Amino acid sequence: MSSPVGLHRVLAPAGVLPQAAQRLDARSEISADEVRIAVERLNLDAASFRQLAQKHGGDGDRVRAEVLDIIGTRGKMQNPVTGSGGMLIGTVDEVGPDSPLGLTKGDRVATLVSLTLTPLAVTDGLVGWDGRSEQVPCVGHAILFARSVAAVLPDDLDPRLALAVLDVCGAPALTARVVRPGASVAVVGGAGKSGSLSLAAARRAGAGRTVGVVPTQAEAALLRGAGLADHVAVADARDPVALAAAVGEPVDVTVVCVDVPGCEHGAILATADGGTVVFFSMATSFAAAALGAEGLAADVTMLVGNGYVPGHAEYALGLVREVPGVRKLFEGRLTL
Amino acid sequence: MSSPVGLHRVLAPAGVLPQAAQRLDARSEISADEVRIAVERLNLDAASFRQLAQKHGGDGDRVRAEVLDIIGTRGKMQNPVTGSGGMLIGTVDEVGPDSPLGLTKGDRVATLVSLTLTPLAVTDGLVGWDGRSEQVPCVGHAILFARSVAAVLPDDLDPRLALAVLDVCGAPALTARVVRPGASVAVVGGAGKSGSLSLAAARRAGAGRTVGVVPTQAEAALLRGAGLADHVAVADARDPVALAAAVGEPVDVTVVCVDVPGCEHGAILATADGGTVVFFSMATSFAAAALGAEGLAADVTMLVGNGYVPGHAEYALGLVREVPGVRKLFEGRLTL
Repeated sequence: MSSPVGLHRVLAPAGVLPQAAQRLDARSEISADEVRIAVERLNLDAASFRQLAQKHGGDGDRVRAEVLDIIGTRGKMQNPVTGSGGMLIGTVDEVGPDSPLGLTKGDRVATLVSLTLTPLAVTDGLVGWDGRSEQVPCVGHAILFARSVAAVLPDDLDPRLALAVLDVCGAPALTARVVRPGASVAVVGGAGKSGSLSLAAARRAGAGRTVGVVPTQAEAALLRGAGLADHVAVADARDPVALAAAVGEPVDVTVVCVDVPGCEHGAILATADGGTVVFFSMATSFAAAALGAEGLAADVTMLVGNGYVPGHAEYALGLVREVPGVRKLFEGRLTL
Repeated sequence: MSSPVGLHRVLAPAGVLPQAAQRLDARSEISADEVRIAVERLNLDAASFRQLAQKHGGDGDRVRAEVLDIIGTRGKMQNPVTGSGGMLIGTVDEVGPDSPLGLTKGDRVATLVSLTLTPLAVTDGLVGWDGRSEQVPCVGHAILFARSVAAVLPDDLDPRLALAVLDVCGAPALTARVVRPGASVAVVGGAGKSGSLSLAAARRAGAGRTVGVVPTQAEAALLRGAGLADHVAVADARDPVALAAAVGEPVDVTVVCVDVPGCEHGAILATADGGTVVFFSMATSFAAAALGAEGLAADVTMLVGNGYVPGHAEYALGLVREVPGVRKLFEGRLTL
């Protein structure tokens, strides 16, 4: 019997969900409610790729070897240090008769559930990847469970662009939910993928003042050029006092989109009493956030950025289609 | 110049807030806006004490030696593995002329900001502690900043009881905020300190069905005897499928109060779409929560349990005074 959440693919330890598993069964045969994808490209989570690149001093061959080893050992791509994964793009190869996902053989799709819980096997040794970017060309297969989420890729957008957008599509959808009309909003990492989408989502949700915080003057120029924030400030988000000063008057909503550790305190300091902090960065420390707010006697609501919000894929793709500044930033990152 | 959040006490690394610091300056001389406390007792965070006890195989002498070493090295009590601390009780020894905390020399107080950011020095070698419980009799001093929180201990409650309640007083206050009248609520770890208070808070906030989940039949009997939940179930919270089965019909609000790692997925599975999970456990993994919800395509709001909510101390002490079942559970733990 197969489980809608993939329990039957967990090899070790027993009883956990696939995301918590050390090792998954990535066999290509599918159960009646599963779907097999012929994989074309992986998109590694930013925190994961950064950790690997730093660990290996930017040596692409060693990064590639470690990613291959992780996938081979674990039956999935989950960075053992950051715990994060990423997503993938591919073509539907076989659909079990009981799959509820509505996919058809031949559909070109992106998976919207994390690689950390997706059974994955690679057969080409990643020969097409230089180990120097998050986007990994790849031959192999991946498995979707009954309770997975996949989006058919739109015809009107470059697939690499669509993949980059879908990878972070939970952030703008949740930002749009949290921001009330007139609310002031700061996005830390505002020139990045999830950051620029979150700024656009905040404005569309009726935000008042919007602030984009970025780490360098170069990113500030990019974000100013994109016109997504009323105010653009440069600060090291790991320096709480500097971050709060960059934001200025404390805001109603702070959205953290930078994948470096240690941004929790600054985000809390930058947020007004009664406000909300949304943490999308996988580098967020739960204890640092909880104890930081307590230690600052800060009455703020802190949300764990859930990557799933109903309708998130269409919402994010719509922003990229309709907000030129967002599209420009994404296309600039892809060097299309 | 002293900083209201204690930046002037940070020795290393530069620029971080006291909670993130490796080392604090615990000198006894106070700035004009600080307060010095003559310490009487520490109450170690449950996750921290559990880690220390397990590491040392329950050897109290070695646990004591490590706690002494941490305090001596770091100038604060912050477990380097769990990142958590606890709180303390003592008597106000000196109040700077510019302190806004409203304390007076001689007040018996509990600090409501974490030990992880409180400058602390111990002078008795912890000779009065056997290393076998979270409550640590102690001679020494601690420093409060301008933006700290301390509660004067009530006259009508045993100070050990008050300390145990104040240590977790953020949980019932935030639970009361999140629970809407008629909402179904599950509390994982319902017989514990924060768990029993959260169950009582949920009922006071008008919850419909309440479920308390506990790990053993012995705790189930205790919780049933206290009468705090409509339904008491035994399950290993680290087993997502078992936890969800124990809760039954998915609930509107799940409150996680067990200090063991790996409870994120079960809490998400036990929560209805559109519901809320509040994580109070310091053992919570941010990545496991974020990726778990995404991987389960679960539309749940996940809150980082902020230990500070205005009025939290009075609210929790009120529950202990007015709900006999809560008081009974707390007194049973203290073996008064």
